[in-house]
Amino acid sequence: MTITLPTIKFLQQPTSEAWLKQALANLDTLLLDHSHCERKAAGVAMNLMFRYPSNTRLVRALTAIAQEELEHFEQVNQWLERRNIALAPLSSPPYAAGLRAQMRPKEPERLLDSLLVSGLIEARSHERLGLLAQHCPEPELAQFYRGLMASEARHYGIYWMLAVEYFERAEVEPRLAELAVAESELLTTLHPEPRIHS
Amino acid sequence: MTITLPTIKFLQQPTSEAWLKQALANLDTLLLDHSHCERKAAGVAMNLMFRYPSNTRLVRALTAIAQEELEHFEQVNQWLERRNIALAPLSSPPYAAGLRAQMRPKEPERLLDSLLVSGLIEARSHERLGLLAQHCPEPELAQFYRGLMASEARHYGIYWMLAVEYFERAEVEPRLAELAVAESELLTTLHPEPRIHS
Repeated sequence: MTITLPTIKFLQQPTSEAWLKQALANLDTLLLDHSHCERKAAGVAMNLMFRYPSNTRLVRALTAIAQEELEHFEQVNQWLERRNIALAPLSSPPYAAGLRAQMRPKEPERLLDSLLVSGLIEARSHERLGLLAQHCPEPELAQFYRGLMASEARHYGIYWMLAVEYFERAEVEPRLAELAVAESELLTTLHPEPRIHS
Repeated sequence: MTITLPTIKFLQQPTSEAWLKQALANLDTLLLDHSHCERKAAGVAMNLMFRYPSNTRLVRALTAIAQEELEHFEQVNQWLERRNIALAPLSSPPYAAGLRAQMRPKEPERLLDSLLVSGLIEARSHERLGLLAQHCPEPELAQFYRGLMASEARHYGIYWMLAVEYFERAEVEPRLAELAVAESELLTTLHPEPRIHS
């Protein structure tokens, strides 16, 4: 299989062909993991709204993101139902915990890092759903991934917009570059379990 | 002012006239508190989804509730914007904490109590938004409350439906009656700060 892997501007390294092969060979597990990812993405947006309840722009923007993640969660769950896959726990790959470990615990750095890490996860999801849209052998499922990938890119844009709203660009840009390096490093070794972020 | 206070079937005591007078005299504060309530209601539904991620019916039903609460949260925030009320923290009345204190910490009782407490809060919100819809002197705002009260009743119904799906009716009914007594007791003394659940 020869695959053309696109490069997403903000990601330091493109996804490996090994991930795509693993994903395409395990579409059911990937869908179940995807369901967890959408629920967690909604949870992350909600947590940020709760942590900064007076930051109006942040609250309004994250309300929209949380709503959309819940919509996607429901859509993925419909796919699971159609394929008779029961909702069930799945072990998490080290990706999210690895990114969380990069986050500085003190404000205001914590807010900046939270926004940029969420943005990077969205950018990576955009890239990977795009690969699935392009290479998934089931046309209807490929179409579903194609529909989602645009939202992921938009969510990335919103997290970025919030970062430059609350912080100076001169602080945001180098920090994004640092976090993006860490993000790519976390994906250099393929996690043995097939996951969206393995 | 003479007010006709309707009785909601599951609530042990109707809302006092004192609450309504306090509310109508403090519509701006009430809107700000309402915004917090909608965000918290979305958070509670999300937390339940995270706590029971394999209970398919619960997850699907609560996804819909969380989405709707977020939609209401955004709508209330638009009202705040229109009235130039900044998003800001507000101290919570003792209501929610008092209800939480009633909840049994061990499973499966914890799930039952979580569903019933959420249901009771929705039922009370339905009653109180109905009072505001009826008595609010600003027609547009009254109309807004009227639109929301139907959802609150529906949410009550969903929490009830989930309770009787996962538990025997013979267990659910007496427990609901107990919790409903506690809920009404928490509201017998009007909280000095105007709140949706003061």
